[in-house]
Amino acid sequence: MPGQNGTWGEKTAGEKAARDVLDAVLRRAIAAADPREILPRHLPPLPKGRVVVVGCGKSAALMAAAVEEAWPEVPLEGVVVTRYGHAVPTRRIRVIEAAHPVPDENSLRGAREVLAAVQGLGPDDLVLALISGGGSALLTLPAPGLTLEDKRAVNAALLASGATIHEMNVVRKHLSAIKGGRLAAAAAPARVITLAISDVPGDDPAIIASGPTVPDPSTFAEARAIIACYRLEMPEAVRRHLERGEGETPKPGSLPHASFTLIATPMMALRAAREAAQAHGVPALILGDALEGESQALALALAGIARSVRRHGEPAPAPCLLLSGGETTVTLRGGEKPGRGGRNTEFLLALALALEGEPGIWALAADTDGIDGTEDAAGAIIGPDTLARARAQGLDPRRFLERHDSYSFFEALSGLVRTGPTLTNVNDIRAILIT
Amino acid sequence: MPGQNGTWGEKTAGEKAARDVLDAVLRRAIAAADPREILPRHLPPLPKGRVVVVGCGKSAALMAAAVEEAWPEVPLEGVVVTRYGHAVPTRRIRVIEAAHPVPDENSLRGAREVLAAVQGLGPDDLVLALISGGGSALLTLPAPGLTLEDKRAVNAALLASGATIHEMNVVRKHLSAIKGGRLAAAAAPARVITLAISDVPGDDPAIIASGPTVPDPSTFAEARAIIACYRLEMPEAVRRHLERGEGETPKPGSLPHASFTLIATPMMALRAAREAAQAHGVPALILGDALEGESQALALALAGIARSVRRHGEPAPAPCLLLSGGETTVTLRGGEKPGRGGRNTEFLLALALALEGEPGIWALAADTDGIDGTEDAAGAIIGPDTLARARAQGLDPRRFLERHDSYSFFEALSGLVRTGPTLTNVNDIRAILIT
Repeated sequence: MPGQNGTWGEKTAGEKAARDVLDAVLRRAIAAADPREILPRHLPPLPKGRVVVVGCGKSAALMAAAVEEAWPEVPLEGVVVTRYGHAVPTRRIRVIEAAHPVPDENSLRGAREVLAAVQGLGPDDLVLALISGGGSALLTLPAPGLTLEDKRAVNAALLASGATIHEMNVVRKHLSAIKGGRLAAAAAPARVITLAISDVPGDDPAIIASGPTVPDPSTFAEARAIIACYRLEMPEAVRRHLERGEGETPKPGSLPHASFTLIATPMMALRAAREAAQAHGVPALILGDALEGESQALALALAGIARSVRRHGEPAPAPCLLLSGGETTVTLRGGEKPGRGGRNTEFLLALALALEGEPGIWALAADTDGIDGTEDAAGAIIGPDTLARARAQGLDPRRFLERHDSYSFFEALSGLVRTGPTLTNVNDIRAILIT
Repeated sequence: MPGQNGTWGEKTAGEKAARDVLDAVLRRAIAAADPREILPRHLPPLPKGRVVVVGCGKSAALMAAAVEEAWPEVPLEGVVVTRYGHAVPTRRIRVIEAAHPVPDENSLRGAREVLAAVQGLGPDDLVLALISGGGSALLTLPAPGLTLEDKRAVNAALLASGATIHEMNVVRKHLSAIKGGRLAAAAAPARVITLAISDVPGDDPAIIASGPTVPDPSTFAEARAIIACYRLEMPEAVRRHLERGEGETPKPGSLPHASFTLIATPMMALRAAREAAQAHGVPALILGDALEGESQALALALAGIARSVRRHGEPAPAPCLLLSGGETTVTLRGGEKPGRGGRNTEFLLALALALEGEPGIWALAADTDGIDGTEDAAGAIIGPDTLARARAQGLDPRRFLERHDSYSFFEALSGLVRTGPTLTNVNDIRAILIT
């Protein structure tokens, strides 16, 4: 990564050391979520029978490639569904690309082929299910009698209703032919081993990609109650399907042939990042793996913690690295024409303004998928002189923040961090180094 | 404090234990800022000569009373200026009440009497200066040739200009006859010992009450540059005064007879709170003494940290108390008719919503001055069942938050914490207990 990133012109020794720590931290966080690095050690012993690999999510193709690499001689079969542009070359496992976040016909095709691939297996066969974020939209199969259009109408109604994520999932799982453990049920009696990369707060297996291999405690009755509670208008076919309540999701205890392993999570990436910092002699404090809220608001809060480290040695003495994960949001006010930028560069610009050039504080924030928002950078790095350097170039940092034009700001300062798309995702990593 | 607070009906043992910890934490934080508790140990040996006590700030009268109590036989003289309603009975030191935050005629009178009290002293005499938050407005004396009206006009122009706090202080100190070290200069050759309670982020002695006893590195030339930079319209008398530049503030090194001691700060209060928690067997992490931003935004950030403690044991294993200080803000959207509430109850209601009834998490937030906003409570306490109890009473927590009606919410739940006005202030204390 060093060398790919922008330079800051003449670097002081302290600046160089700070950038080295932050670069290493990001590199290790991404490596901790890279299927090629982490997946092989989670592979089970080879079964007597066949090995069928299925999967869905933005990382599905890369995970499939990692399996092929780890088992070069094994006659693998199966199919995984990933997002358009997220395929990588594979030789034995097929890759289908489909639309995200709104499913398309390829999502249906993908789901049908995944289900077909696990049919007719025996107890000596192994199904390896490779699950990652985005899998819910990519692997979509309406229950018999329902259409993709029905599911889209339900989704739109749910999103507008104020229902919680949990409630939405209860309804969705009862309109699907593959979610909520149905994929694992279809694979029986073969053993099903799921290897998953989490990008959801709490890392709940039932939530990642809507849990196609995970038992579902919720019921048709609950789905109906949620529809009634929020007075949701449902297509007639959906209403009838829920009333009939045929084909309940597999309940806890009913999938003894299936096991589930998280191979990468935001917290695992943060802990790997902490080790990287410690190897540079910098102790790190992990504040949390799912910090949310507006980018600017979180910047203010973390600036206060960073200042406290410098002034008071609380919550930890300097040198210290404050790590956090999760996804922030950037809310645009109505009528604004926003500039270019993602939630990480917005966070950093707000952090620089909150720190007002406080000496000895550097920070990096980046999306572990390598793409901050819609831009070609993963994030950026700031230092104590970020504001001064901007002003020396005639740039007004506050105006850039007001226009949500943080990408342009850091591009002008050569402060962007580029990793290229990583094809994995454990959300953002924010690292604030107090020296 | 226990007994004064609202009850939660039938308490479980865990709930009782949680409330005991939080009550003790608040009590100790306030005690750590109570002049009667902390001031005596900072008093110097009695001088050969006279003891003149002067002071300003919301805690000035209570600090004066603490001096009288500690030195019952000493013939004290002098005068302190406090806010209307903040006087306490004293026998030897006079107390003047004046207006805050906009100075009135009593602020002028108070400043003149304070300056008069330190005239004509000798090297064996001692001036004890008692400084606390709000002192800048309470001790106001325009430089010769300027009026209170001039200073108000300048203040209004500065506040509207976008100038930083530091820049505003540079200008103010050069329009004052008492700020920026001038009080200490007037007291020479007597020894000047300042005992101060800080309510400003960073605890800069030059900022607390505009530093009447603290050297000021800034100059008339800087004040003029700030006026020019922001193109401020100044009253003619102010413009002439700054141009003339006569009577510069005392510069660093020029007040060798003056010393300054912080006797209470937000961080000292947080550390005392940590000791109280540890005495209950709960280790505490101090996140910072000056966390700022919107109450609701900080609640989201701290909810994420609290959840991480429960789920991952990061940044510390449970049981754990997350402590923070500083002052948040509550911004009302235009056109709203806000309900009743202060920044601490708003923070807690938003925190309860963000935690969604997560088990094992309790929290207290309160203003150490005993008054959250304009209400009669210092703050409130929440627990895992706060939302459920509200809904059982037919209250919609989100609607209360949208209306900024958090006081009413906690009043209905008997969740308010009342301490009465404490006559001291080291900002807010927020304590989140994860069991």
